[in-house]
Amino acid sequence: MERTAVYPGTFDPITNGHIDIIERAAQMFDWVIVALAVNSSKKTLFTQDERFALAEQSLAQFGNVRVMLCSGLIVEFARQQGAAAIVRGLRAVSDFEYELQMALMNRKMVQEINTIFLMPHERYTYLNSSIIRELARYGSPTIRDFVPAIVADALVQKMSNVE
Amino acid sequence: MERTAVYPGTFDPITNGHIDIIERAAQMFDWVIVALAVNSSKKTLFTQDERFALAEQSLAQFGNVRVMLCSGLIVEFARQQGAAAIVRGLRAVSDFEYELQMALMNRKMVQEINTIFLMPHERYTYLNSSIIRELARYGSPTIRDFVPAIVADALVQKMSNVE
Amino acid sequence: MERTAVYPGTFDPITNGHIDIIERAAQMFDWVIVALAVNSSKKTLFTQDERFALAEQSLAQFGNVRVMLCSGLIVEFARQQGAAAIVRGLRAVSDFEYELQMALMNRKMVQEINTIFLMPHERYTYLNSSIIRELARYGSPTIRDFVPAIVADALVQKMSNVE
Amino acid sequence: MERTAVYPGTFDPITNGHIDIIERAAQMFDWVIVALAVNSSKKTLFTQDERFALAEQSLAQFGNVRVMLCSGLIVEFARQQGAAAIVRGLRAVSDFEYELQMALMNRKMVQEINTIFLMPHERYTYLNSSIIRELARYGSPTIRDFVPAIVADALVQKMSNVE
Amino acid sequence: MERTAVYPGTFDPITNGHIDIIERAAQMFDWVIVALAVNSSKKTLFTQDERFALAEQSLAQFGNVRVMLCSGLIVEFARQQGAAAIVRGLRAVSDFEYELQMALMNRKMVQEINTIFLMPHERYTYLNSSIIRELARYGSPTIRDFVPAIVADALVQKMSNVE
Amino acid sequence: MERTAVYPGTFDPITNGHIDIIERAAQMFDWVIVALAVNSSKKTLFTQDERFALAEQSLAQFGNVRVMLCSGLIVEFARQQGAAAIVRGLRAVSDFEYELQMALMNRKMVQEINTIFLMPHERYTYLNSSIIRELARYGSPTIRDFVPAIVADALVQKMSNVE
Repeated sequence: MERTAVYPGTFDPITNGHIDIIERAAQMFDWVIVALAVNSSKKTLFTQDERFALAEQSLAQFGNVRVMLCSGLIVEFARQQGAAAIVRGLRAVSDFEYELQMALMNRKMVQEINTIFLMPHERYTYLNSSIIRELARYGSPTIRDFVPAIVADALVQKMSNVE
Repeated sequence: MERTAVYPGTFDPITNGHIDIIERAAQMFDWVIVALAVNSSKKTLFTQDERFALAEQSLAQFGNVRVMLCSGLIVEFARQQGAAAIVRGLRAVSDFEYELQMALMNRKMVQEINTIFLMPHERYTYLNSSIIRELARYGSPTIRDFVPAIVADALVQKMSNVE
Repeated sequence: MERTAVYPGTFDPITNGHIDIIERAAQMFDWVIVALAVNSSKKTLFTQDERFALAEQSLAQFGNVRVMLCSGLIVEFARQQGAAAIVRGLRAVSDFEYELQMALMNRKMVQEINTIFLMPHERYTYLNSSIIRELARYGSPTIRDFVPAIVADALVQKMSNVE
Repeated sequence: MERTAVYPGTFDPITNGHIDIIERAAQMFDWVIVALAVNSSKKTLFTQDERFALAEQSLAQFGNVRVMLCSGLIVEFARQQGAAAIVRGLRAVSDFEYELQMALMNRKMVQEINTIFLMPHERYTYLNSSIIRELARYGSPTIRDFVPAIVADALVQKMSNVE
Repeated sequence: MERTAVYPGTFDPITNGHIDIIERAAQMFDWVIVALAVNSSKKTLFTQDERFALAEQSLAQFGNVRVMLCSGLIVEFARQQGAAAIVRGLRAVSDFEYELQMALMNRKMVQEINTIFLMPHERYTYLNSSIIRELARYGSPTIRDFVPAIVADALVQKMSNVE
Repeated sequence: MERTAVYPGTFDPITNGHIDIIERAAQMFDWVIVALAVNSSKKTLFTQDERFALAEQSLAQFGNVRVMLCSGLIVEFARQQGAAAIVRGLRAVSDFEYELQMALMNRKMVQEINTIFLMPHERYTYLNSSIIRELARYGSPTIRDFVPAIVADALVQKMSNVE
């Protein structure tokens, strides 16, 4: 029996921490769908098309991973895709509480889909997209340790446009 | 490709909370091995044979779940069994920190095995084996809501022997 | 001696989780005042009049509960009402820290008023007004499990106006 | 309608932090019963009779507080006493999780009794009986800031006997 | 060898909690630089010049403390100043996680600079600039317990202008 | 002005995580005293003499670090040594709460000595002496990544004696 997992997020932009989680999920499931949230109310640095393209190019190396847009509730999207699980990364206690709350609510809506939590490599404990955007804003070369080269280039260019 | 998950624990005794997690894992993996820890230094209420028998009888309903004894490091056992993942239940923040620590250490030892975390049903948030043993000690009938009937019977008998 | 408790909040809108806490407080105190915060700086989905009306109708069943507007500091309001306590619900660790901080500050201002914390039923662990608004936005019927019928109707109508 | 609250604990020995919570409860309830746990399995510094006497003398100042022994489950004891609530002090996140778990389990057993949480004065944030026993062991005069004089004297005498 | 520490923040406005931490740092380091963040994206109550002047006047009593503006990444600023450490106050678990994340990221960027954490006096556990601004908004005299007199005066005047 | 820091612990045995913290402290203070707790009530794997010798040999590389025995309250020991600070490592939220409590109590006893918290390298997040002893018990070669060679050898030998 083939099993699919859904990994949702805003990916503004995708980081090595995300990719680390996706790689682990891709080892445990037959298919992984990276569900890029279409959320008009949340202001993002990159446009939806840019976020999609950066995610897709960064994940081209994985044969069983696919990026898709998701405009509704994640758990509904997962059901439509026939997914067995929603995958989330856990780094810290504060992640944990919010994630637990969302996972319980999602299960209340669609009982047969479980949320599973994976830990990224500890070198990504202190990594999130907002810190990456902050570093990029100040032109720190450190971003190249935390995002794929094409994402780093996109960040540099985006920041030079913003100024 | 068939995938196996290992769910380790002391199971002193097995509770509905454990069974809830095992059932979720059994939906996502082809095989689930319940690894009963052989730990001579930790004092348990039930003997190793009793814990094994109670777990096996409580899980007979699941065709792809098997109980085994594990006398060494869990992650080594998981490697020998060709497991893709170690499964752990997460209920609370204090669980989370200890589990994170163990999962990172296990990954350090055997890189290709990930720990995945699942949440039990919220009705089991307040359930653990030590509370069950406490309730049994005072003869509370509430234990029947939290353990299978054969485990409840075994607890009642054990407590009458202890006095 | 009669004792009054104050339960403050924005109630945008009132949920079954709020009502669960109010019911518990109403069993322990002679009077419970639900203090609806008048806060012009915080953008709400429902207007102040709508939030007031929904709370009042949802609480009509309790003979010793009254909804009032509160436009200043909660602890000052509680003093003016002769309250013995401020009641707050606790669901999660992140609630706990913020609540502790506010309770200590409130006590610093008015020593004789204590904050007491109550836990809602565990089925409301994953419930808050912002998740309800999110579900309503996507038209999920699940909202009817978490808010009174009149609130669910108001949410459906509000969302159809927003679009 | 008169309302009673139960405040359970081991009180080995009673500290100013406990008394602070009891005083707050005594302002909100008509009667407060301090339920001293009779627990043969837990090794205590003071005997049951000593703990009882120290608690009773330290609380003689409160007209509506009474110390009682409790040998079974707290929630059963509370029901027998016709209590409306069990009172617990909350100082820290780690308290919070354990307390939440116990409170949910207690409610499962006796639905009509709620647990309410109160915060001690912030000067007692760092106070617990085990730190007091540790300080007494090293003869630190600081204990007199944290326990009533009769408890401090009893600690000094107990420690001189232990050596 | 002389050692310098950097204490960064927005200081909108500086409070007694900040000053408590600065005083402790000034006892352990030869020099303390209070680095006032120049952050055009964050809306502050006081202008940059006002925040600078209030901090400088409130810290005039300390011979080895100096206020400076910092417009880039803190860790870069600390390196330019030849600092041995970045100092941060820790009051609560939620502080802790964010601070840990920032400290790890800062160390990744500049290895030789450590972040050290200090605890303010427990009377400042419930104090932060946003609560102070909230109290000032309602005209609470309690602010005078938590900020220097010149800051309290500035808050009163600012609030009368805002209305 | 020369400044001394005290770093207390049981060191059963000393690990690379401890050494990482000591190295950071040794960069910020003129002298670091590693205070090995003499605690007859706590059962340790290594004797006091063994723990002292392993710590001393593992720290021989640092010119300004010295190992000493401490048989009383740490904060009293720190005062006798004229220390400016007590140093503690922080890895996790559960560490944090206990540490905060001890630090506040210590400050209550000796006002002029602050506790400062440092973070070890993230590769030591999942490291503590009890995990090391557990790995050694099962003969895992992974211990050599987490303790100095002489400590690893001592662990191997100790475990062969225990069997």
